[in-house]
Amino acid sequence: MQASNVSFPDRVQPAGNYSWVEKRLLPLIFRSVGPAPVRVVLGNGTGVSPPNVAPRFTMWIRDLPTLAELLIDPETGFGDAWTEGRIQVTGDLTAFLEAVYASMAEATKGPGWYSRLLSKWTDVQQANTLEGSRENIHVHYNLGNDFYRLWLDSELVYTCAYFPSASATLEEAQTAKMDHVCRKLRLQPGETVAEAGCGWGALALHMARNYGVRVKAFNISREQILYARQRAQEEDLNDRVEFIEDDYRNLSGTFDAFVSVGMLEHVGRENYGEVGAVIHRTIGDRGRGLLHFIGRSEEGQFSRWIRKRIFPGAYVPSLRQALQILEPYGYFVQDVENLRPHYAKTLEHWLDRFEKSSAKVSAMYDAEFERAWRLYLAGSIAGFRAGTLQLFQVVFSGPKSGALPWTRADLYDKRRENRAWTPATS
Amino acid sequence: MQASNVSFPDRVQPAGNYSWVEKRLLPLIFRSVGPAPVRVVLGNGTGVSPPNVAPRFTMWIRDLPTLAELLIDPETGFGDAWTEGRIQVTGDLTAFLEAVYASMAEATKGPGWYSRLLSKWTDVQQANTLEGSRENIHVHYNLGNDFYRLWLDSELVYTCAYFPSASATLEEAQTAKMDHVCRKLRLQPGETVAEAGCGWGALALHMARNYGVRVKAFNISREQILYARQRAQEEDLNDRVEFIEDDYRNLSGTFDAFVSVGMLEHVGRENYGEVGAVIHRTIGDRGRGLLHFIGRSEEGQFSRWIRKRIFPGAYVPSLRQALQILEPYGYFVQDVENLRPHYAKTLEHWLDRFEKSSAKVSAMYDAEFERAWRLYLAGSIAGFRAGTLQLFQVVFSGPKSGALPWTRADLYDKRRENRAWTPATS
Repeated sequence: MQASNVSFPDRVQPAGNYSWVEKRLLPLIFRSVGPAPVRVVLGNGTGVSPPNVAPRFTMWIRDLPTLAELLIDPETGFGDAWTEGRIQVTGDLTAFLEAVYASMAEATKGPGWYSRLLSKWTDVQQANTLEGSRENIHVHYNLGNDFYRLWLDSELVYTCAYFPSASATLEEAQTAKMDHVCRKLRLQPGETVAEAGCGWGALALHMARNYGVRVKAFNISREQILYARQRAQEEDLNDRVEFIEDDYRNLSGTFDAFVSVGMLEHVGRENYGEVGAVIHRTIGDRGRGLLHFIGRSEEGQFSRWIRKRIFPGAYVPSLRQALQILEPYGYFVQDVENLRPHYAKTLEHWLDRFEKSSAKVSAMYDAEFERAWRLYLAGSIAGFRAGTLQLFQVVFSGPKSGALPWTRADLYDKRRENRAWTPATS
Repeated sequence: MQASNVSFPDRVQPAGNYSWVEKRLLPLIFRSVGPAPVRVVLGNGTGVSPPNVAPRFTMWIRDLPTLAELLIDPETGFGDAWTEGRIQVTGDLTAFLEAVYASMAEATKGPGWYSRLLSKWTDVQQANTLEGSRENIHVHYNLGNDFYRLWLDSELVYTCAYFPSASATLEEAQTAKMDHVCRKLRLQPGETVAEAGCGWGALALHMARNYGVRVKAFNISREQILYARQRAQEEDLNDRVEFIEDDYRNLSGTFDAFVSVGMLEHVGRENYGEVGAVIHRTIGDRGRGLLHFIGRSEEGQFSRWIRKRIFPGAYVPSLRQALQILEPYGYFVQDVENLRPHYAKTLEHWLDRFEKSSAKVSAMYDAEFERAWRLYLAGSIAGFRAGTLQLFQVVFSGPKSGALPWTRADLYDKRRENRAWTPATS
């Protein structure tokens, strides 16, 4: 790490060693990210710090073109340059990103048309048509099960876990999450469930095995579906779980419950109307459902860098936007829970395992891939910690569905822990 | 009750005794309310039933002008005519209204412009300016404490209760509601709370007495404020609770928490931006808050009859509409709970007590007033049962507020029941 022992001037003025252009450009960084506690050093120069803030990190920028990228499109510029080693940061990457996110929340926002234009360009490239979605999902989920096995839990659950206490293991927390979802849905033996976006099948298998329901689970990732089918066969659950390699939009049949954990992020807001139509076609006015998704506290653009490098076609809605799915059908919103700190902790577990396997990841792909994924995981932790990202679980029921339990106390009944849920009689 | 022993023809055709005009008009009722299981009888005629539905109720309409009112503006027409005895209904009024609401949900809706026009006219008459609100609130809440004492619980809590079990008494359920609110807010001794719309002060006193907080409570109903102040004095809580006779929009000072139970319905959707501004001025980015309000599963007009006779200026938002209050400030929605069945049960208790005191109410006001209030209570039960009304509790926190407990389990911890909440340490 270069430039980590230079002194910190207390003004937004590069001290020396810089050309006139560099002296004008460097301070602009704090215009876009706000007064982050970061000393910025360009090449072999002496660096610049924000006014009135003691720097806790140093960010080194290799050259003027990299600085220009950063100023034109801060997020993608940083992501690409850090991944390629043209930008380096001292200290803990996650803590650095968290500090920058917090600072950006304070910063004067740039012109809205500019970020909308940049974002629109990504939208066009990654449209979630039936074919576009297949391509978008393929990029991420067909990287190979061996890759995900390196850093996910043993059941390959790639969504926010639920930690009954902060000291629970990742494996315990993923099981607890699946139980939390099943309890919230008040699943009863013999019922039928449609799952949209089933990953490697852990939740579908858990529901069938522990709650006695029959599940039809959809996913357009072939690698995941093949893995899930194999597990169903091994567990002899083939008669109760059907894994279908198809788009959620082709879901057919009628069911008692609809569940989708971690798919809405991939749907794109232009398709929310269709999500609602699929749900209504599936459970009608009598069923109930649960949507589990990454959200935001206010409408905004989702990280372009993550969309470019990690999740093509992704969009993260505010809670209000997500409710557009349910309102046209008059679904009753029964329960919304925000699990934001749980996703930060889940990601900490993932990043910890990922870093322990970083050499393997580099060997499987290359060093740049490994850095991109490390940045994505660290950036997500920072986002959930700083609150730029939220995690919502929304439970809803049709206007003609039967009664739910009188209160939510059954979700927290210790006597029911690790057992299938049976309805409260009070 | 006239006409209760006539036979039911199975077509939408009045059988006889009717003029040509009446024969054309009567069947139109089922165009606006759908196939409700109701036999409709006009004057001394033989009546009409909907096709393919066995009538469970008979509605008697005194004369042609009353029928015309009902057809032009079904809701206000029914409300006024039933109140004045020009319409009568056999059997249980609540069950009748519930059946009609359920049927209306199935009915083909009339032209939207027509109901919007009718609704707009009421909006204009009842605008929630500072002065308009005072007038609107005066109409309802200054009817006299003696009136409300006849049918509310002993603490005069005029909002949805929370029944830990269906067999809880109204008094127990109102106390449980106040505890549920305080626990959701995670109140800590020494904290400060702003309450907007405090009714007769029960919640403010409960928070100060049982949770050790200091409360500033606002209300524009003089009768209620005077009563609340007296109670604070009697309980020697004057140093911890301040009751202020003023509009919530004049709320000043900074607080740890903001709470509003049953006020949003009176605010009017045109003022949601201002509600958000008041909240942000009060608790900033570090506080937390709870909104408890009657809502709907989809946007729509609120009952014009209730606005005319009972609650001038009222508006019932969908959850999405209510979130417009919080989103501009980036508040994190932590928890939404739908207490719809709890409000139906609360209202059943109120109606039961009201009916036992109906002679007293008639004596205090007059028979028409008594009928109007009976219809309002019965109609509200029907609305919550049928799902045209919902009850939402929304917990939110500022982007810089401290950590909340790891899960919601503390809300349901039996060991804490009937005791002040202390923070979980896990």
